[in-house]
Amino acid sequence: MKEINYTAPTMLLNEQICRNNIQRMAQKAAKHDLKFKPHMKTHQSGEIGQWLREYGVEAVTVSSVRMARFFSGYGWKDITIAFPCNLLEINHIKSLAADVSLTLLVNKPATAKVLQEELNYPVNTYIELDTGSGRTGLLPSRVKEIHELISFFSDSDMLQWKGFYSHPGHSYEARSEDDIQSVQQSVIQKITSLRGELGSTRDDFEVCIGDTPTCSKGTDFSGIDAISPGNFVFYDVMQVQIGSCGVSDVAVAVNCPVVDRYPDRGQLAVYGGAIHFSKESLTQDGTRHYGLVATPGSKGWTIADRDSYLAGISQEHGIVQCSPNVFEQYAIGDTITILPVHSCLTAHLLGGYRLSESGRKVNHL
Amino acid sequence: MKEINYTAPTMLLNEQICRNNIQRMAQKAAKHDLKFKPHMKTHQSGEIGQWLREYGVEAVTVSSVRMARFFSGYGWKDITIAFPCNLLEINHIKSLAADVSLTLLVNKPATAKVLQEELNYPVNTYIELDTGSGRTGLLPSRVKEIHELISFFSDSDMLQWKGFYSHPGHSYEARSEDDIQSVQQSVIQKITSLRGELGSTRDDFEVCIGDTPTCSKGTDFSGIDAISPGNFVFYDVMQVQIGSCGVSDVAVAVNCPVVDRYPDRGQLAVYGGAIHFSKESLTQDGTRHYGLVATPGSKGWTIADRDSYLAGISQEHGIVQCSPNVFEQYAIGDTITILPVHSCLTAHLLGGYRLSESGRKVNHL
Repeated sequence: MKEINYTAPTMLLNEQICRNNIQRMAQKAAKHDLKFKPHMKTHQSGEIGQWLREYGVEAVTVSSVRMARFFSGYGWKDITIAFPCNLLEINHIKSLAADVSLTLLVNKPATAKVLQEELNYPVNTYIELDTGSGRTGLLPSRVKEIHELISFFSDSDMLQWKGFYSHPGHSYEARSEDDIQSVQQSVIQKITSLRGELGSTRDDFEVCIGDTPTCSKGTDFSGIDAISPGNFVFYDVMQVQIGSCGVSDVAVAVNCPVVDRYPDRGQLAVYGGAIHFSKESLTQDGTRHYGLVATPGSKGWTIADRDSYLAGISQEHGIVQCSPNVFEQYAIGDTITILPVHSCLTAHLLGGYRLSESGRKVNHL
Repeated sequence: MKEINYTAPTMLLNEQICRNNIQRMAQKAAKHDLKFKPHMKTHQSGEIGQWLREYGVEAVTVSSVRMARFFSGYGWKDITIAFPCNLLEINHIKSLAADVSLTLLVNKPATAKVLQEELNYPVNTYIELDTGSGRTGLLPSRVKEIHELISFFSDSDMLQWKGFYSHPGHSYEARSEDDIQSVQQSVIQKITSLRGELGSTRDDFEVCIGDTPTCSKGTDFSGIDAISPGNFVFYDVMQVQIGSCGVSDVAVAVNCPVVDRYPDRGQLAVYGGAIHFSKESLTQDGTRHYGLVATPGSKGWTIADRDSYLAGISQEHGIVQCSPNVFEQYAIGDTITILPVHSCLTAHLLGGYRLSESGRKVNHL
């Protein structure tokens, strides 16, 4: 398949692969009797949100108040902001609560008190659990603080407690399906133990888990009620390395103009740098890279070979290290396609998509 | 000085420090009889461009065709696109060439030929030299290829050869003023040697050098005719570590809402992640960080202490590691100010500024 040559770095989106990824996750959620509340932070697109609707999605997850407002404009009525409640945005939160069924992460009584005083319309709350990522949320061992929050919520007419939310981001350290299963097991163990401590029955509250690796490859969802993965709609080279997907599941790639050639060092200079890819990198076989050279085919992209990758980036410059075979295929004035390390950040930077088949534009927040 | 609490991550700009940085560089250029053609990629701001004009700047440097068009809209008439000419943007280049005195980096005869055929209005050309960064440009030892290009230009009615351009990006590996001087010496040596090979006299052509470290701290500009640094308008923690400036010269910082507190690990969760700061990091005393906690004062920011820094970032989350003293100063609902590692990427991501004194907005491309 010959791709369109864009004049500046452009994110290509293979609609069929993206829809396959959505369908597979929707079916998996149904099979395990899980509510499917996908995270929109990866694609940030009104249109891709519409594709999710076609597979039965009714509730979504976002990472900022701004993103919640954006998707409420696309008719979404059940929105979880999976970020510790930012009290400085209280006015926007109040306005959102008037328009949609809003769920907030509330991890501190002080935050709960401000919300109780300020809100005019009720919201739902999750308590965020730190199940191993060490980023945000309460440790499941903090039973006293968890009880205190639940007790506050039960007395509140504005904060309706829904359950627990966790993003087990430590699954990103996995490098195989086995590693992913281990992370999932440890998360489930912590939640089961917390359920015991709280003396709850299965229907007392909801537990929502949000990372792409365990949602993609996990097989045991005991005690989990909902999932909110985000990256799975696109996947990327990082998820391939983790073991969440194969290369053929990656739905996005970046098309970059070739602007110079360096035969002595087997490198191409491309228009495509840190303001397009982000500076997210991976180390594979001891070599750091910012993306892999891809070959377009009828069913998405394949990796050109192991020796061809985006080796260095500065603000707008990219340096692509090439195998001799790949190097010979590209002239100045051509474009080259790169599979990104981290599709969420790359999509955010490029701010829009072109369908790989038709070239039609797809919007981004 | 108490800062304004913004509701979402916001780039603060201290106008006085920025103007001081501009004035200092303009005076240095004048002292060394160098044409001053600052790079606009760091600030990408029409208004900050206007400040540069007030210090006598008449010609500017940019890193993309889009940025050239943006600044031509602010009345700039002498614009160098310091990026290997992207032939895929030929239509935009042709249109720009009609409006401004445009200078392109042309490093290959094949590129030169396309331009000669396509252009309707003449442009200036620089040959880019790789003086040690290993990114783009011809090695100064490639005398035959350089002669070939010069010869092509001399026969062309559309491509007027102006001289050489180089971005000695390897100065970013410096960690002291002495290191910076060494890089500058090696660059000058290469250019002097090339001048000898070309048998040129001092006035034959122009040499323009573009990195902030050597332009800030270099003392020897023998054989250099013009400078085009960009980062110096703001500087950042990376430039402090390189030795290009002091902390008191850093003109920008990022104000972030505090959304959670973790006393056990001495960490704050903030609204401020990879889509605000970029994933550019530095390692200092063996610890990787994405920015340093800053204390606002009447003359800009100081670093709070050595133990308080942005330790981790994901898409929108930031985790700030704090000393006990710093930790105690911040409650949920406050904001905290972080000096960024790389101001160019952070400014690009935040897409605008607020003046630190008045809160007035300053635009960005």
